[in-house]
Amino acid sequence: MSTLFTKIINGEISAHKVAENEDFLAFLDINPNAKGHTLCIPKKEVNKIFDLDEATYLHLMKFSKKVAHALEKTIACKRVGMAVVGLEVPHVHVHLIPLNDMKEMTFQHKVEMDNNQLAELAQSIAQNFEV
Amino acid sequence: MSTLFTKIINGEISAHKVAENEDFLAFLDINPNAKGHTLCIPKKEVNKIFDLDEATYLHLMKFSKKVAHALEKTIACKRVGMAVVGLEVPHVHVHLIPLNDMKEMTFQHKVEMDNNQLAELAQSIAQNFEV
Repeated sequence: MSTLFTKIINGEISAHKVAENEDFLAFLDINPNAKGHTLCIPKKEVNKIFDLDEATYLHLMKFSKKVAHALEKTIACKRVGMAVVGLEVPHVHVHLIPLNDMKEMTFQHKVEMDNNQLAELAQSIAQNFEV
Repeated sequence: MSTLFTKIINGEISAHKVAENEDFLAFLDINPNAKGHTLCIPKKEVNKIFDLDEATYLHLMKFSKKVAHALEKTIACKRVGMAVVGLEVPHVHVHLIPLNDMKEMTFQHKVEMDNNQLAELAQSIAQNFEV
């Protein structure tokens, strides 16, 4: 069975996309730790990040860095944090989280954003993404 | 003034090292979220990970992946999580955390390990590190 993220890649489930290329996709987390919390995923369905082949792993990290720069340009924050956990969805995903406070890294503090706010934010980030 | 981590690199402060090469160092966090919680740092003193030059950034990620594999071989865990926060020490550090539970990613749950336990564990991880 496809993961939730493969369904997003295939367009079966919609998402607020911020960047995409042939191999990777970035979209907003709908239950964000902080405004701008984004997930970067490889289109290839692999469970654990350290099991990715070296080339895909390094390209994912390059892609994530570009997305982080777009987040920094769009959202007022002290820095962009990164986390890879993966205990819930078995499809590699890099969390990028614009941080102003440590609590935003704990995954226990969430911010409320409605669909329109997420759509507008995704568009602003996408405009700051440099391919 | 040098960061705490530069002092570790220079040997002014001791650390339980698990891997080292010309440009990077990995050592155990002395206040671990979980057994085996390790920090991977570039020897170059840079504050934010996404400000690293591309080559250093990608080499740090390659180095961190090798350390993660050594952790997986040494410690029973579901997977190795990764986090980059950096709100406390202004010197890039990648947290690698052997995970069995989400609480180990929150930085609010800590495990007690004495100096001897840390020294022994660092040695076991170092033996599983493949250059």
